[in-house]
Amino acid sequence: MKKALAFDIGGTKIYSTIIDETGKIVGEIDKFSTPKTLDGIKDILKTQVQKYEKEVDVIAIATAGAVNNENTAVIGSTGNLVEGYYTIEFPKLSAKRVFIENDANAAAWAEYKIGASRGTDVSVMLTLGTGVGGGIIINNKLLKGKSGAAGEMHFKMYPDKRRKCTCGSYDCFEIYASGTALKLDAEEALNDKNVTTYDVIDGVKNGDKKMIEILNRWQRDIMIGIKGLANLFDPDCVVLSGSMAQFVDVKKIEEEVNADIVTSPTSIRLATAGNYSGMIGAALLALAKEGV
Amino acid sequence: MKKALAFDIGGTKIYSTIIDETGKIVGEIDKFSTPKTLDGIKDILKTQVQKYEKEVDVIAIATAGAVNNENTAVIGSTGNLVEGYYTIEFPKLSAKRVFIENDANAAAWAEYKIGASRGTDVSVMLTLGTGVGGGIIINNKLLKGKSGAAGEMHFKMYPDKRRKCTCGSYDCFEIYASGTALKLDAEEALNDKNVTTYDVIDGVKNGDKKMIEILNRWQRDIMIGIKGLANLFDPDCVVLSGSMAQFVDVKKIEEEVNADIVTSPTSIRLATAGNYSGMIGAALLALAKEGV
Repeated sequence: MKKALAFDIGGTKIYSTIIDETGKIVGEIDKFSTPKTLDGIKDILKTQVQKYEKEVDVIAIATAGAVNNENTAVIGSTGNLVEGYYTIEFPKLSAKRVFIENDANAAAWAEYKIGASRGTDVSVMLTLGTGVGGGIIINNKLLKGKSGAAGEMHFKMYPDKRRKCTCGSYDCFEIYASGTALKLDAEEALNDKNVTTYDVIDGVKNGDKKMIEILNRWQRDIMIGIKGLANLFDPDCVVLSGSMAQFVDVKKIEEEVNADIVTSPTSIRLATAGNYSGMIGAALLALAKEGV
Repeated sequence: MKKALAFDIGGTKIYSTIIDETGKIVGEIDKFSTPKTLDGIKDILKTQVQKYEKEVDVIAIATAGAVNNENTAVIGSTGNLVEGYYTIEFPKLSAKRVFIENDANAAAWAEYKIGASRGTDVSVMLTLGTGVGGGIIINNKLLKGKSGAAGEMHFKMYPDKRRKCTCGSYDCFEIYASGTALKLDAEEALNDKNVTTYDVIDGVKNGDKKMIEILNRWQRDIMIGIKGLANLFDPDCVVLSGSMAQFVDVKKIEEEVNADIVTSPTSIRLATAGNYSGMIGAALLALAKEGV
């Protein structure tokens, strides 16, 4: 059976493991803190490649940042990674084929092949974490756009500049639907810079009405964003993944979205492909040569 | 050369003509007021089909409303047409093949084949008229979604219910970017229910500062919507068509969109395929059997 050496390169951690063509993890999970230097990142990649490349058919990398349509390079800067990250020449890491894809796209592909959106034609995945990632699949293809950067969840929630987004612009969905957004919602509601998302979640568990209100406002904004996406893409389902997805009332959002959708009712689901879905998706894309 | 008998069925007018496989109009343009009854609409279609079907290879219909993925039926209700419109069995109109497509999708296809988005891989078209239509083309295919209804420009401009949209929901892009929206902007700014879009346009021509402000607010909202679409689809271009497009400062919107885009710069263009682009696009889709 064919296998991939898979990486997940994020702002805080780099993971690597070996994954077979069915999406099964068949190696150890190696874990590193993401170095603050370009050479540090390259060293980890080189070391892991040297160690494992003989065992595999392809190197499959899920990475933060937009990836070009040739799946060979990161394009532009990525807020969470060291400056110049996009200069890494991934294909030179190994004599074997090196395939890279955006982490949210890769995770969406894993959900589509072995997870929550299996069997659908059109799906939208939202990764709700510190930020918000997006991966959209249309008839067995990832939506990539002209440069590879499509699926950015930076449509506007207000037109009149209220909250600055991490991207430098204002009022993007990301800054109302992420974990960071929940903290900002709480800061605004309580007029307290030190409140955390944990405070909100704990408060909700203890029945604190103010905290429930804050969580509801955050969920409303997620719902409003999904409603727009559902009207644009008419998807079979919207999959929610990432560390913040567990705090979302999926059934309630589904009801509210479908209450006044103009396309046709959609299904909202939690992701099921697990924490390593980025690596799994990248491996499946690289091994099957479909989807991109 | 192959030819289509083409129709454009809208809320106020029905047009028909004959179009060849290059997109050229080769017949008379017949024009009817859209009847208020189902039988009235059917009668026009039947009469025109009987008159012209011998001259053509296919019947190609651009229609208001969402069209199924088989291009045989309208799905659900369309606000602008008589109740029960979706019950029309279009394939029974002729022994020849009858192909139908949503009017905005068909017009987007005409722009892609012979107009402003020719030669692009990914394009978004917005039809700014009384309402707002959308047609999205990704790698030589119209974006249709699971049921055929994708491309609805009903993503939200505010999350907290300010302005009711014609779709029954609140704060959709359509109700901030349409001709109707410009009138509502003016009503709000001037506290005058009787102000018209013509008043605004005339005022702007005469240098009226208040009217310029109103037009600028409307243009800002269009720009904000396009920015979100550009981040989602990473398109080569966004094409503006419809009767209201002429009042948009395309260059200014392009600059503002690209000033803080997170994907990669896009081009904003006025449509060039003309007033009959819906019929042309439907004919080209029907004759070439591509795109859908």
